[in-house]
Amino acid sequence: MTQRIFIQEVAPRDGLQIEKRFVPTAEKIALIDALSRTGVAKIEATSFTSPKAIPNLVDAGDVMAGITRHETVDYVALVPNARGVERALAASADELNLVMSASDSHGLANLRMTPWQSLAHFPAMIEQTRGHDVFINASISTAFGCPFDGEVPASRVIDIVERLAALGIRGVSLCDTTGMANPAQVRALCNEVIRRWPDVALTLHVHNTRGMGLANVLAAWQAGVTRFDAALGGLGGCPFAPGASGNVCTEDMVHMFEEMGIDTGVDLDALLAVSATLSDLVGHEVPGQVVRAGRASRRYPLPEHMRQS
Amino acid sequence: MTQRIFIQEVAPRDGLQIEKRFVPTAEKIALIDALSRTGVAKIEATSFTSPKAIPNLVDAGDVMAGITRHETVDYVALVPNARGVERALAASADELNLVMSASDSHGLANLRMTPWQSLAHFPAMIEQTRGHDVFINASISTAFGCPFDGEVPASRVIDIVERLAALGIRGVSLCDTTGMANPAQVRALCNEVIRRWPDVALTLHVHNTRGMGLANVLAAWQAGVTRFDAALGGLGGCPFAPGASGNVCTEDMVHMFEEMGIDTGVDLDALLAVSATLSDLVGHEVPGQVVRAGRASRRYPLPEHMRQS
Repeated sequence: MTQRIFIQEVAPRDGLQIEKRFVPTAEKIALIDALSRTGVAKIEATSFTSPKAIPNLVDAGDVMAGITRHETVDYVALVPNARGVERALAASADELNLVMSASDSHGLANLRMTPWQSLAHFPAMIEQTRGHDVFINASISTAFGCPFDGEVPASRVIDIVERLAALGIRGVSLCDTTGMANPAQVRALCNEVIRRWPDVALTLHVHNTRGMGLANVLAAWQAGVTRFDAALGGLGGCPFAPGASGNVCTEDMVHMFEEMGIDTGVDLDALLAVSATLSDLVGHEVPGQVVRAGRASRRYPLPEHMRQS
Repeated sequence: MTQRIFIQEVAPRDGLQIEKRFVPTAEKIALIDALSRTGVAKIEATSFTSPKAIPNLVDAGDVMAGITRHETVDYVALVPNARGVERALAASADELNLVMSASDSHGLANLRMTPWQSLAHFPAMIEQTRGHDVFINASISTAFGCPFDGEVPASRVIDIVERLAALGIRGVSLCDTTGMANPAQVRALCNEVIRRWPDVALTLHVHNTRGMGLANVLAAWQAGVTRFDAALGGLGGCPFAPGASGNVCTEDMVHMFEEMGIDTGVDLDALLAVSATLSDLVGHEVPGQVVRAGRASRRYPLPEHMRQS
C-alpha cells in the first residue's frame, strides 16, 4: 500500500453546484485560490454545463479566467458534451473530466444519455482536444449503485472501463454518486480495475451519504488507489436524500491519512483554515468533523480539580 | 475475516449520560426494551456511578428493575468502584463493565485514579462477584490516545491487557474515548491483542469525533475483531469537543456490515425505527446518516422528464 496519495478537491464544482445560494464569482475564485495554496494535487474548478442545468456554475469561464494558477495544481473542468469541451479548452483547463453514468436511468436522468450513448459521444469529444495539451479523465457515475435502477453489476463497470481505455482515456474515476458503495464492494472493484489497467490513473470519488465515506476511502487505498476526490467541509450531496451528507470531506480524509502516516502532500492546517471560512460562504453549517473537533493531536487543558491540586 | 459480528449497544449509558435533558426513567426503559427487540447482542443499560458524577443515570437501579429482559441479550452495567459492583449485582446485571484509563491524566480526571491504581482496585471488585453468574469486562479508555496526555503507546495498552488477563478478566474493550484513533493504529493494536490473547473477548469501542468511526471499525474487523460497541443515532460525545460527533452510530455500522454481506444478527429496519424516535427523546438532531438517507438499497422515483416520456 502506497505511502503517497493525491488529493483532488471537488468542492468548487461538486460542492457549489447544488448549493441554494449562488456563490459570487469573486468568492469562487478566492476559494479556489486558497485551495491552490494547500497542496492539493487537483482542483475541479467548475463545470462547462448548460446554465439551465446548473445555474450555480453559469460563470465557469470567468472563474477559470480569474483564478491564479499554481504550478503544482491541475485545474479540472467537467464537460458533459462537445460545447463543454470547446469552452473548457478555450479556458485552458489542464484536465477535462468527461462524465457518464454506469446505469441507464441515472444517465438518462442526468445527461439524457444511456452509458452506451455517452460512450458513443466520447470519440468526437476526444478528437476536439487534438493538439491541446490537456489530460482526459472519464468519470463513471453510479459505479457502485444507482438510486433508480439499484444494483450496478461490477461486470458492467468493468466493461465501461474497458471501452474507455480502448478510447485512449488515461484517467478513470469510479464515482459513488449517491453514497451506496460499501468497503467490500469498493475494494473488489478497485482491485479489479487496477489489476486489469495498471496504467490507467484510477480515482475514487465517494459521497458520505450513509456515513461510509472514509471507510470506502480506506478500502480503496488498501486496494492500491492513490487518487481521491473529496470536497472541502464535506460539501455537495445528493438531491434525492435531503439532510444527508455530501462528498467525503477533504480535510477529514487528509487528517485520517496523515494520522496513518501517509503523505497527502497537503498542509492540513492551511486546509482547515480554508474550511473554517466555508459556512459563511455557503450560508449553512457543513458536515466536516475535524474542523470542529480539531486534529487528533489536539491537547485539552486538565479539568479544574486537577489543576488546583 | 469473520462473517458474523456482535453489536453492543451503548446509547442508554454512553449516549444518555452527557445529554442536557434528563431522560425520564420510563423513557429509558422503553428505549432499552425497543433495542432488546432489534437483535443486538448486548445493551449497556446504565452505569452504577455516583449521581453527583453522572446525574443523568441516577435511576440506574430503577432502569435495571424496569426493563423486560430478552433471553438473547446481555444487559451490561458500567461499574467504577466497589459500591457500583454491589449495586449492579443487586440489579442482576448480566455483565459488569469495569472502567479504567490507559493514560494517567484521563484516569485522574475521570476516575481520580491512575491506570495502576485502577488495576489495584480490580481484584477486590472481582472478588465481590464470586458466586454470582456475571461476566466481567474491563474497558480501557483512551487506549488510542488521551486528550490531555496525547499519544498513548501501544506497549502501555498491551501491558494493561496483560494485567487484566492475569486477573482472570475474560472481556476487554479498547476504547477510543475521544475519537483520536486512526485505522492503521486500530488494526495494529487489535491484531496484537488478538494474537497474544485469543481467548479474551475483545471489543472495539470508537467515537466518530473526527469522522473516522466506521473506518476504524472496518480496520478492527479486518484484524479479526467481532464485537463492536456503538450508540444508536451516534449519540454520546466528547465533553471537550462541542459540536463533534459522538459514538460511532449503531445503525450506520450495522448498515455497513450488512451491505458487506456480514451478519450482525440485527434487524436493521427495526433498529432504524427505534433510531427515528431518538431526536424526540433527547430533544435535538442526532448524527446518524442512514436514518436520514435510507438504506443503500433505497430506490427513488425517476425524475419527471423521464416519467412523462
